[in-house]
Amino acid sequence: MQHLIIASTSTVHGSGYLEYILEELSNHFKNAKTIVFIPYARPGGISHNAYTEIVNTAFSKIGKTAVGLHTFKNPEEAIKNAEAIFTGGGNTFVLINQLYKNNLLEPLRNAIKSGTPYLGTSAGSNICGLTIKTTNDMPIVYPPSFNALALVPFNINPHYLDPDKNSTHMGETRETRIKEFHFYNTQPVIGLREGSWLEVKNNNVILKGPHTARIFEHGKPPYEINPETNLTHLN
Amino acid sequence: MQHLIIASTSTVHGSGYLEYILEELSNHFKNAKTIVFIPYARPGGISHNAYTEIVNTAFSKIGKTAVGLHTFKNPEEAIKNAEAIFTGGGNTFVLINQLYKNNLLEPLRNAIKSGTPYLGTSAGSNICGLTIKTTNDMPIVYPPSFNALALVPFNINPHYLDPDKNSTHMGETRETRIKEFHFYNTQPVIGLREGSWLEVKNNNVILKGPHTARIFEHGKPPYEINPETNLTHLN
Repeated sequence: MQHLIIASTSTVHGSGYLEYILEELSNHFKNAKTIVFIPYARPGGISHNAYTEIVNTAFSKIGKTAVGLHTFKNPEEAIKNAEAIFTGGGNTFVLINQLYKNNLLEPLRNAIKSGTPYLGTSAGSNICGLTIKTTNDMPIVYPPSFNALALVPFNINPHYLDPDKNSTHMGETRETRIKEFHFYNTQPVIGLREGSWLEVKNNNVILKGPHTARIFEHGKPPYEINPETNLTHLN
Repeated sequence: MQHLIIASTSTVHGSGYLEYILEELSNHFKNAKTIVFIPYARPGGISHNAYTEIVNTAFSKIGKTAVGLHTFKNPEEAIKNAEAIFTGGGNTFVLINQLYKNNLLEPLRNAIKSGTPYLGTSAGSNICGLTIKTTNDMPIVYPPSFNALALVPFNINPHYLDPDKNSTHMGETRETRIKEFHFYNTQPVIGLREGSWLEVKNNNVILKGPHTARIFEHGKPPYEINPETNLTHLN
């Protein structure tokens, strides 16, 4: 009975924080007044308080309050009792490292599996997959494991970027990186472009937003899917 | 008495594999006929044999032969006895994972510290730093540690890319990522643009090639340095 929004990004170009998805969130969080916010990914190294402030400003527009998980004495209890949960973006390694340090992977998985509505953006979406092995982030800290929440039977690649055909840069394209991932791992990867999200209701997975998404399955050429495609059978 | 070339990339746009640096390598490897090649990073998932073949074709132009480390029964002995060593690019996580699995970090460090000439490109350059925490690669395998060879007292960021001012993409720029690194780590990072390399002779470190490099020191604004700058005191 899980209910998740797994979003590529918090912010689309030219619009405010979470602005593009606020209407959707108003519905997603309709039974929650207060949302427990996990600020661990710390984008740009900002403080947990400053990050929670940004989130609060956005949520206030739909009549919700965000409370930073770092302000609770017992974060495990806070997650267990949460009406709703949001994990924001930043650095995926920093995020998962802190979740492991605080022994929160299991409580978080249990809460979401029992129906607590969840929103993830960017790093907060990466952790919904089987592993964080398809993050774009720099490995600035060494976490005890790359295993993630496994709420969906595949991996996420947020901020998916198409190869730039005019580029003279020799670093790998995103597609090359994900193909390399499949030399060592077999689960599918969903490349989610900025402005796209996955809506997960129970085990139903549907692509939302204005863009197609790119699906990488082991041993198959990658392909595009349209918005509203049901991905329930992808695993 | 170490002697290293730490290069941003194996290939610059519009030129063949190692072509831009062959003349330099002819001098760097002047006392070696055979070069032990470490193909573990497997760019694009190609086989160790296929990768060694590409390297061999390039080295044959300066009268050298590359022998893949994977062809030796005892890779530790092969490194100990090598006339020269080259570690190619690909995925840094895959590379360091394989080096740990085969217990080769220490033998490799010892060989280079005792004077065996070394060339690294891309992933093969990342491992020369203190850690691989400033790699651009996707973490497709989980290595036992991010600690690297520590042949120089800083970290490398190869394929360094300036922010694209016209981009509407919301993913982090390289500079943002390296700044985030400095919230958790204090060593300097050298952003090496494609076509640049560091020449390390004993403890002397000099920037070579046509481009400036970008230096990120903890607690300082990043700055550019010109080719031929001596970086010996950076740590």
